[in-house]
Amino acid sequence: MTDTIALKSEIGEITTLLSELEVAFPSLKIAWPSAETVEYSYDAGTVPKAQVQEPGPAVVWPSSVEEVQAILKAASRLHIGIVPRGEGTGLSGGATAASNQLVVSTQLLNKIVEINVEDELAVVEPGVINSELNEKVAPFGLFYAPDPASWNLSSIGGNVATNAGGLRCVKYGVTRESILSLDVVLSDGELITVGQRTLKGVTGLDLRSLIIGSEGILGIVVGATLRLRPIPPARKTISVWFPETQSGAAGLSAIARTPVRPSIIEFIDEPTLKAIDNASGTQLRSRGGSLILIELDGYGLDEQIVDLGAALTAVGGNVIEEDTDAGEVLWELRRSGRGGLDPRRWSISSDIAVPRSKFKDVFAYFPTLEEKYGVEVSALGHAGDGNLHPLISKEVPESADPATPDPAVAAANLDLIKFALSLGGTVTAEHGLGSAKRYLAELELSPRSLEIQHAIKRAFDPQSLINPGKAI
Amino acid sequence: MTDTIALKSEIGEITTLLSELEVAFPSLKIAWPSAETVEYSYDAGTVPKAQVQEPGPAVVWPSSVEEVQAILKAASRLHIGIVPRGEGTGLSGGATAASNQLVVSTQLLNKIVEINVEDELAVVEPGVINSELNEKVAPFGLFYAPDPASWNLSSIGGNVATNAGGLRCVKYGVTRESILSLDVVLSDGELITVGQRTLKGVTGLDLRSLIIGSEGILGIVVGATLRLRPIPPARKTISVWFPETQSGAAGLSAIARTPVRPSIIEFIDEPTLKAIDNASGTQLRSRGGSLILIELDGYGLDEQIVDLGAALTAVGGNVIEEDTDAGEVLWELRRSGRGGLDPRRWSISSDIAVPRSKFKDVFAYFPTLEEKYGVEVSALGHAGDGNLHPLISKEVPESADPATPDPAVAAANLDLIKFALSLGGTVTAEHGLGSAKRYLAELELSPRSLEIQHAIKRAFDPQSLINPGKAI
Repeated sequence: MTDTIALKSEIGEITTLLSELEVAFPSLKIAWPSAETVEYSYDAGTVPKAQVQEPGPAVVWPSSVEEVQAILKAASRLHIGIVPRGEGTGLSGGATAASNQLVVSTQLLNKIVEINVEDELAVVEPGVINSELNEKVAPFGLFYAPDPASWNLSSIGGNVATNAGGLRCVKYGVTRESILSLDVVLSDGELITVGQRTLKGVTGLDLRSLIIGSEGILGIVVGATLRLRPIPPARKTISVWFPETQSGAAGLSAIARTPVRPSIIEFIDEPTLKAIDNASGTQLRSRGGSLILIELDGYGLDEQIVDLGAALTAVGGNVIEEDTDAGEVLWELRRSGRGGLDPRRWSISSDIAVPRSKFKDVFAYFPTLEEKYGVEVSALGHAGDGNLHPLISKEVPESADPATPDPAVAAANLDLIKFALSLGGTVTAEHGLGSAKRYLAELELSPRSLEIQHAIKRAFDPQSLINPGKAI
Repeated sequence: MTDTIALKSEIGEITTLLSELEVAFPSLKIAWPSAETVEYSYDAGTVPKAQVQEPGPAVVWPSSVEEVQAILKAASRLHIGIVPRGEGTGLSGGATAASNQLVVSTQLLNKIVEINVEDELAVVEPGVINSELNEKVAPFGLFYAPDPASWNLSSIGGNVATNAGGLRCVKYGVTRESILSLDVVLSDGELITVGQRTLKGVTGLDLRSLIIGSEGILGIVVGATLRLRPIPPARKTISVWFPETQSGAAGLSAIARTPVRPSIIEFIDEPTLKAIDNASGTQLRSRGGSLILIELDGYGLDEQIVDLGAALTAVGGNVIEEDTDAGEVLWELRRSGRGGLDPRRWSISSDIAVPRSKFKDVFAYFPTLEEKYGVEVSALGHAGDGNLHPLISKEVPESADPATPDPAVAAANLDLIKFALSLGGTVTAEHGLGSAKRYLAELELSPRSLEIQHAIKRAFDPQSLINPGKAI
């Protein structure tokens, strides 16, 4: 389960570091490398399917910025690799850690420092859970827009690390568009602030955007000033049903031909509708062969529904206004996804995006993939952004070991990713490269672009101690 | 008029370079250093008030990406400083050039390469004028949102260089939120692409955002894929008049207490209303002592007007729905500003932003400044972003030389900028640091942050040849 990167430290140095920290910070929560810390060696994208390596990494839970600074300063002096960790909900192995690395958890840095209603901002520590922040700001008529499917579990710091998307980013933007400024501890323990408390600011290079989505390789975010938005006066769920997958995927283009800008536009194909029905006991498939699930918000919802409904009906959609309760159920089903992976199948899920006009072409390519590799392919996705999460799977024969993946599944995944690139797409839209998808970077980025990224990494972290072996 | 930076090249080397280029590209438009090229030594923020230095810089007008690459490759070999230049409408001296530097104009790189309606994007060369792009995409029901006051004059490349804001960015975001990807020629002539054609993408570090707003110090943008938006189904102008400046500035906070999100929220104080009246022969001051000028767009305008009108009336505003023609006139007056600077006054205009709740505090500070420095201070601004453009001025006595600025004006400007910083503000919200405001960077950025920015600059441009002496 550990990374295969060149390791720069030894367990002996970890012992020195932890002993020093115990003396310097008697109240600092520390877990020494052991069988119990193995769960800190992986994340939700690299959950062990087979044996794991013991001991796990050392873990510290600082509860102040000063502790983070002292930990990194000491680790830097001892050349120990540091792995920042939020809630471990990442899907690309961005938080995997080896036995000789130190995991710095942000779980105890979980205070909401300020909610400013007039400025529509919140100042938070990185360990605050996304949905908890939303509960706290809702009474003020405000919400924090980025809503990854993990929002009940994932932390703001983790969301910043991956520039998390979600459902509502089609209207409100990704995490980058909701971050005003960040406090970041660098690998040598120094603290810098990037960005401004103001909505605009162009003083110097945009280090704020550079930190957002950097997957923890530039420093540890210890504070964030977040932009909040007013809760819209009304929200309405519209479900649009099509006879099968392809007509629904093609029907999406009707939305852009209206001036309506829904707050959510999701697409679920036929196999995924069936999987949701199997997992949840619902009857979605009986309503249609594919689903465009839309949330409208703001003013003039009736007018919006007229314009949008006409456009989607014209392309063959069965447009249904859902009442509040039915809408809630549909969103919960969408967020829960397929209900977990089937252990009797080899599965890889992906995170590609293509220009919206090419969205249907990706679905049209699935039968080719299925035939070529003997796999099954389905997808659901954030259709308004052209972002889809394909699931490629194959049944494990009785004679085979589920822990030994079939190369055909990986080959089909790579084929699909290259197909997305050929359409002007991207290898990862919102999950990040982490350790699991790092090999894909060079498919998309030129050698010179990667060279510049590595030079930027060195500018922040000359010894390459923060989250080594991730992202680039 | 020339920069005071350490110059790395000699006129002799410029001669060598231009001679080489004439041979290699017989059709390349070249202006040798002369009195005629003096206008390329300054921009709209550094227009000469007194004598200028002759000769001006050499200027080249490449008409292809390959020419830009060849020019930079040759200039790099000869260690000649390069100054990228759009239309020269910048307000911070980001395009100033010395006699021994080579100005690379993007004026002939002015093709709209693609308009893709379904994907709501345009691919353009950097020399395309902002308003011309908007004219071209309007028939498709689309618009390009960033609208700096200079939009009739300024180019997309220049807008990218400063991460230009404008009026509608309060709803649609600044230039960064309308750029999908950029093609950039680096100082050694190599071409890289940053960003993706897709709406989302997190492959590697966000070099796209790093280029945006970098004021030409990292490379020359030679192509841009721009995000377009649907023209909203309706727009409406609302003017809200208050008895004097302070009540209007305080009244702005009422907007955030509604869920209405106007597409424009501008504020004009009493002295600026008078200045507009003097310049344009209007009678704005007779309608009120300060003005919040609002554009609403989208669906449900009647409902929006009810909610917003009630909130602004409650804080003492006189809320007027303008008809289309009257609205157009007001927006044209706003975009034209004060109608040019008075040559009989020493004047400095500024570009600060503060958190919105502090907007009124800035205006409340003006009398203190006026008394302390013997100056007059007024402002108009993008109130929804907390961004204001103060004008600090003082009458030139008969005995004095208008070309020799009174130090009190500069001192008052610096005092005001420091006051904005003390409120959590920024030294430049949308104009950039350029050469004129470069000294302000260290007021806002920590030494370590600046050190990282310089290391990033070196990663892109190891010889520091592109726009040396600007921004950071």
